[in-house]
Amino acid sequence: MSGQLVVAGLGPGAEDMITPEVTAALIEATDIVGYGPYVARVALRAGQRLHGSDNRVEVERASFALDLAARGRKVAVVSSGDPGVFAMASALFEALEDGPAEWRDLDIRILPGITAMLAAAARLGAPLGHDFCAINLSDNLKPWAVIEHRLRMAARGDFAMAFYNPRSRARPEGFARVLDVLREELGGERLISFARDVSKPGEHLLTLPLAEARAGMADMRTVVIVGNSMTRQVGRFVYTPRQAPGVQGAGVQGAE
Amino acid sequence: MSGQLVVAGLGPGAEDMITPEVTAALIEATDIVGYGPYVARVALRAGQRLHGSDNRVEVERASFALDLAARGRKVAVVSSGDPGVFAMASALFEALEDGPAEWRDLDIRILPGITAMLAAAARLGAPLGHDFCAINLSDNLKPWAVIEHRLRMAARGDFAMAFYNPRSRARPEGFARVLDVLREELGGERLISFARDVSKPGEHLLTLPLAEARAGMADMRTVVIVGNSMTRQVGRFVYTPRQAPGVQGAGVQGAE
Repeated sequence: MSGQLVVAGLGPGAEDMITPEVTAALIEATDIVGYGPYVARVALRAGQRLHGSDNRVEVERASFALDLAARGRKVAVVSSGDPGVFAMASALFEALEDGPAEWRDLDIRILPGITAMLAAAARLGAPLGHDFCAINLSDNLKPWAVIEHRLRMAARGDFAMAFYNPRSRARPEGFARVLDVLREELGGERLISFARDVSKPGEHLLTLPLAEARAGMADMRTVVIVGNSMTRQVGRFVYTPRQAPGVQGAGVQGAE
Repeated sequence: MSGQLVVAGLGPGAEDMITPEVTAALIEATDIVGYGPYVARVALRAGQRLHGSDNRVEVERASFALDLAARGRKVAVVSSGDPGVFAMASALFEALEDGPAEWRDLDIRILPGITAMLAAAARLGAPLGHDFCAINLSDNLKPWAVIEHRLRMAARGDFAMAFYNPRSRARPEGFARVLDVLREELGGERLISFARDVSKPGEHLLTLPLAEARAGMADMRTVVIVGNSMTRQVGRFVYTPRQAPGVQGAGVQGAE
């Protein structure tokens, strides 16, 4: 088959955080497929076809894109952030798995982007500078019991945590329960940061102790980061040191 | 103070994965500071000063850069991948915390980059498409007991996992112990991927069941990714579906 498909990460919002690899792929594409607002962000050249869609039909969108590629088009599926982190890449492979066998022969590439939690971490300082977990709190895809169990395991492992989709449309009360579990596991002094619309107009950062955190501080455009037991503030920054708790004077790292 | 300091993420290796934000900051800098090979990667304009250093003195390098900025220079500290993920950003804030109070007034910015695990995940497919943990296996900065505990918590939470620095110079046998713990927790059929030199010449990818994994498959230039209980192969790709185990037919995601 001659068709090509890339899944391209657009990063958190700012134009200058889109990699040249992604920009080149978007210029070369004959067809651009994605959630409406993301497609609208992409600069176009003459003759390209745009295929915007609703946000809640990811597998259908992926199948549509694969079918276009199978017809010989050069398709770019656009995704916010990094396609591999709670975005379009997994949906693409779900569609590939369920689709016609010949789709597997297509030239398919995933092009990474700056994912929301790392853009947020950079603005805050370095809260994810030691071991951390990334958890999607959208409860459309998993039951609350799974979320709660993972929160407790992450807390007991003294991982920092980054949360995507903290406030689900389907169950807006879910994030209040998340905060309750975190306070139960970690106590009230642990630092939590809310980073909204990072790199976009209206960017807003807020860091405070868990005891003062409220569910309303997060919405669907917010990434939430919880520190580990060593996370602290220096000046206007939040950071997690490289050393694990109890390790003194290490000061070197084996390799970057 | 008029000095400026950026910590700039160079991504995994390929030039076209460096964001325009980082490229612009490197052009504007009067001084570029970093581990020798990273400094050598950076294209220079006339008049810039280069300050290469050894890899094992990150806090000293950070203090040197802060001091330069305090003297009014525009300093770019270069870091592989994303500065906030097991790289230079935390070292910078450690130096800031321990340094003169006036350093805190400097214009300091962290510029994110494509971190190694996400570059590797994109090449492999989408193994980190559901909740995951990032763990630095370099044991210079934490005792084995901490690493083992975190591995077990991550396994019991059914997180996918990404490992940085799997083979430490200091304790090369450590990664064999990691594999033993993973097999004990997850069984032999769980998929593990080794991604070496992603986006560089000689890139090499290998995916196999944990039972067949050997410590020698990883070196210091390898990122290792372990799937969760749902991770599988489709064609030449490895991916983790968006749904948690036991959740059928969800198929939609609240927000990207």
